[in-house]
Amino acid sequence: MKFDINDVKFNAEGLIAAIAQDEQTGEVLMIAWMNKESLEKTIETRKAHYYSRSRKKLWFKGEQSGNVQEVKNIYIDCDKDAVLMKVNQVGGAACHTGMKSCFFTEITKDGGLRETGKKIFNPEDVYGKKEK
Amino acid sequence: MKFDINDVKFNAEGLIAAIAQDEQTGEVLMIAWMNKESLEKTIETRKAHYYSRSRKKLWFKGEQSGNVQEVKNIYIDCDKDAVLMKVNQVGGAACHTGMKSCFFTEITKDGGLRETGKKIFNPEDVYGKKEK
Repeated sequence: MKFDINDVKFNAEGLIAAIAQDEQTGEVLMIAWMNKESLEKTIETRKAHYYSRSRKKLWFKGEQSGNVQEVKNIYIDCDKDAVLMKVNQVGGAACHTGMKSCFFTEITKDGGLRETGKKIFNPEDVYGKKEK
Repeated sequence: MKFDINDVKFNAEGLIAAIAQDEQTGEVLMIAWMNKESLEKTIETRKAHYYSRSRKKLWFKGEQSGNVQEVKNIYIDCDKDAVLMKVNQVGGAACHTGMKSCFFTEITKDGGLRETGKKIFNPEDVYGKKEK
């Protein structure tokens, strides 16, 4: 059976959720959004492309930093409104904070917040200093 | 630091994305949505509660089938608009189709679709036959 992008259930904003998972460790790295163009680019290039809701444009992950996500497998869910990618995260960290995963803050049983995981890079080294 | 639900960035519909991952195998089981009430219930009961967009109400996963998701860890992402739960999926399958994961359809490199994973239960046995 052929994949038909017209079967994908993009929402009212034309988006689906996209999860990136480390293909080696199984760690969930991040979740972001894809529109039709970014899903097509991801399938075609086997590198993760998202849609930036803040910048309102195609977002080729790692374009600036070089830390691209090489897509090894891509799955669509039963509702056809989300995809899961198994990726090799070049540079080792998916999060803009320099953490490996964006999900580094645990909500603990006692209602606290606990930082987990480790910082792989210093964001200022990769993206440059933000102007104050 | 205490977790404050008012810091969570619910979207215009009052929702955040919620990913359930098998705590043992690391398999991503499903993605669904949570509103404030379902996130509170999930944290409080340590059982996954979502918000059903189709039924427009709180959805206690497994309420009907008994196949609840016991939440072992819950993480919030750097944007505070998504959570990741490590769960024990009672009954072994998260998908309403009876598959372990909702992400059982791979989009292959040649643009095809390939079913992966295995069926754990027959949905008719668990949910009853749908009326035609």
